[in-house]
Amino acid sequence: MSQRMNLFVPSFEMDQEEDVARKTTENGGIGGGVWRFKGNKAAKEAASVSMKGTLFRLFDCCSKDVKKSILPLGHGDPSVYPCFDTSVDAEEAVVESLRSGSANSYAPGVGILPARRAVANYLNREWDLPRKMKSDDIFMTVGCCQGIETLFHALAGPKANILIPTLIYPLYNSYAIHSLVEPRKYDLLPDLDWEIDLQGVEALADENTIAMVIINPHNPCGNVYTYEHLKKVAEVARKLGIMVVSDEVYNKTIYGENKFVPMRIFSSIAPVITLGSISKGWLVPGWRIGWIAINDHDNVFKTTGVVESIKEHLDISPDPSTILQFALPNILEKTKKSFFEKNNSTLSQNVDFAFDALKDIPCLTCPKKPESCTYLVTRLDLSLLEDITNDFDFCIKLAREENLVLLPGEVLGLKGWVRLSIAVERSMLEDAFVRLKGFYARHIKTRLS
Amino acid sequence: MSQRMNLFVPSFEMDQEEDVARKTTENGGIGGGVWRFKGNKAAKEAASVSMKGTLFRLFDCCSKDVKKSILPLGHGDPSVYPCFDTSVDAEEAVVESLRSGSANSYAPGVGILPARRAVANYLNREWDLPRKMKSDDIFMTVGCCQGIETLFHALAGPKANILIPTLIYPLYNSYAIHSLVEPRKYDLLPDLDWEIDLQGVEALADENTIAMVIINPHNPCGNVYTYEHLKKVAEVARKLGIMVVSDEVYNKTIYGENKFVPMRIFSSIAPVITLGSISKGWLVPGWRIGWIAINDHDNVFKTTGVVESIKEHLDISPDPSTILQFALPNILEKTKKSFFEKNNSTLSQNVDFAFDALKDIPCLTCPKKPESCTYLVTRLDLSLLEDITNDFDFCIKLAREENLVLLPGEVLGLKGWVRLSIAVERSMLEDAFVRLKGFYARHIKTRLS
Repeated sequence: MSQRMNLFVPSFEMDQEEDVARKTTENGGIGGGVWRFKGNKAAKEAASVSMKGTLFRLFDCCSKDVKKSILPLGHGDPSVYPCFDTSVDAEEAVVESLRSGSANSYAPGVGILPARRAVANYLNREWDLPRKMKSDDIFMTVGCCQGIETLFHALAGPKANILIPTLIYPLYNSYAIHSLVEPRKYDLLPDLDWEIDLQGVEALADENTIAMVIINPHNPCGNVYTYEHLKKVAEVARKLGIMVVSDEVYNKTIYGENKFVPMRIFSSIAPVITLGSISKGWLVPGWRIGWIAINDHDNVFKTTGVVESIKEHLDISPDPSTILQFALPNILEKTKKSFFEKNNSTLSQNVDFAFDALKDIPCLTCPKKPESCTYLVTRLDLSLLEDITNDFDFCIKLAREENLVLLPGEVLGLKGWVRLSIAVERSMLEDAFVRLKGFYARHIKTRLS
Repeated sequence: MSQRMNLFVPSFEMDQEEDVARKTTENGGIGGGVWRFKGNKAAKEAASVSMKGTLFRLFDCCSKDVKKSILPLGHGDPSVYPCFDTSVDAEEAVVESLRSGSANSYAPGVGILPARRAVANYLNREWDLPRKMKSDDIFMTVGCCQGIETLFHALAGPKANILIPTLIYPLYNSYAIHSLVEPRKYDLLPDLDWEIDLQGVEALADENTIAMVIINPHNPCGNVYTYEHLKKVAEVARKLGIMVVSDEVYNKTIYGENKFVPMRIFSSIAPVITLGSISKGWLVPGWRIGWIAINDHDNVFKTTGVVESIKEHLDISPDPSTILQFALPNILEKTKKSFFEKNNSTLSQNVDFAFDALKDIPCLTCPKKPESCTYLVTRLDLSLLEDITNDFDFCIKLAREENLVLLPGEVLGLKGWVRLSIAVERSMLEDAFVRLKGFYARHIKTRLS
């Protein structure tokens, strides 16, 4: 299995150096003091729903005794595998930025102008709409995560609530909790191509609802919303008087039939804020650069103070590395189409394999073959299993018995589902399904209940 | 004046591309909608004390009509000037990290192990103390700023207050306000080598005080605390039952007589958390990588839940770019002593020049010649000036009349002072003093009051 060091996956080898370091005698005695400080528990709830926390719990369940390598299919980080290397052009762009000597300085909170302009140009180039984006509409963030965090803080107000889908990147939950915005979950309809339950959205909203978040392409379900569906989303948002926050980080990772439609095409119907980043398309989630794009028809975001609040938050928040900001124009302009085509072709083949292999694991079914993103989201049928109580239990036992880490749907807001990454080396995917088959065979319900 | 693009300094040239972009007709009409959202004003107070905001206000006062280049001596970013280029070894380390293909992945919230271990080794190597740091004691942050932010959030609790010095990096204020910790300002004693007014500290503290922050070397005053003074700080902290947070980001930027003593040498007296980064020493503030170092004698930070809270906050916070994290071991190990010596020698010469040139500007006096950092902090004597009401007014008029931007002390918490950066090209410094002299001559009080 060809694989680089996976920063998330613990190694079974002890860190010997660490042990030596601690052998020095402690000559302290400050324990006798009475200390007035203690850790703040406010982040506990926010962090507890985080994916990182859950993954580490599952890695802890893996064991040397299983005598199998750890298969980390619980999170999606294709960049760990050589078959998903980033583009040579992007790498060159960063080296050039670094060598210029111009990328060492502090940047303004909103980001440097060349980066903001490059994102505006990129959006205008990729999707040629009548209303052009300009650099003022773009705010640079430390990956898309900080975009979410910034927006939630910028929009928070007493009693405010935001509608987010079930099956969502868990940081949306964390940031909502942390910024004191109430997250309300709307349903996706797995048997209707994962479309948004818009009737449900209307029922869920009240006078304190300020925004609805959509993920398009939808990670982790892997569907791409149609023009017609997105138009309905805009119309519902207008009716409710709320904005649409559209997370479009996966819009370069599409290998199915449905064409991607940017939500901002409907920004004349309802106000739209788009979140983007190079993490997914360029396979560089560790680089940490993304953006908030304001589609400010009739200056609605300016007059409501949203733009000012975003700026204020970014002024007191960490900035993306200037090296990456300076490299961004070349990254966005010079990366060739063939790079994305190759990645999407690999993903498509992996999805074909995995979707087919699922037939041998009847307790896991996938309602719709993904046409985007890097996951397979499967429904867990507990009635076929002997001693598994829920999706969390399934994943814990799978990790314990097979050193195979999948993500329980509960973390994503949908109990009874399991998510697995298909953005790994093909051999790992094949190995994972062998282990799943063995696991299923051992836990299959033998007697009728 | 040899100078790279200064990302903070606005250009007088219009961004023509921007204008074209906006010419597209708006065909919206969403202004007719009634929108329920509005910007959150919570960050307004926090951001208003930010240095970035003040600097941009001052740059706005500069004008083409003055027919002089803008001299940005209000903030300290030496990396803009070729004479303060970063080390070749650091640059190589980043290229190597990038080329390895291993630095594209997500990192754990606390940082990757090689980076954490490298910081621990670096601290042990530079200051060989009986109690060794280990990788578990280190948490990677997006520059030192995120270290401050994380700590304040991690320590916040109902009614909690933290003691911070006057004349402090304004983000300390911002983060305190934003994390709902009450910041209480203790005095520094300008005529006693900027030592901490420890009697004042004791008077200021109450049962809700949880920490005192010290900056050593003290930016912007440029003093380096002695062993004896730091020991007294630890003793006062022990007496009060509080921790000491020691911001040591300037500890490679020392050109005076006093030797730097790390606060953690006293962590057996009181609990110490150290903040560090490569921003200042390596002249790369835009790279955005720093660390929190826990000096956990007798596990006091673990048992009080501080470590857990730091981890939880970092789990839901932006991460420093993995490229930089992977490069850090080589940056810290391979940069040669001669690099730091050269920078410190340049700074020392600039300080000598500026300290001497101040004699021609009697309204500005510097109580102690800096032996560290990159600023000159001067007392403004308003009694010598005709029509200047305070330090803010001084800086605004100076920007308007001379296109020279200095920082009003008010932003740093000390009204009646003015800060100027000495980490610029020598020619700029010389030009600045010519302008200051002209400005002083125009505003000098001619009649006795």
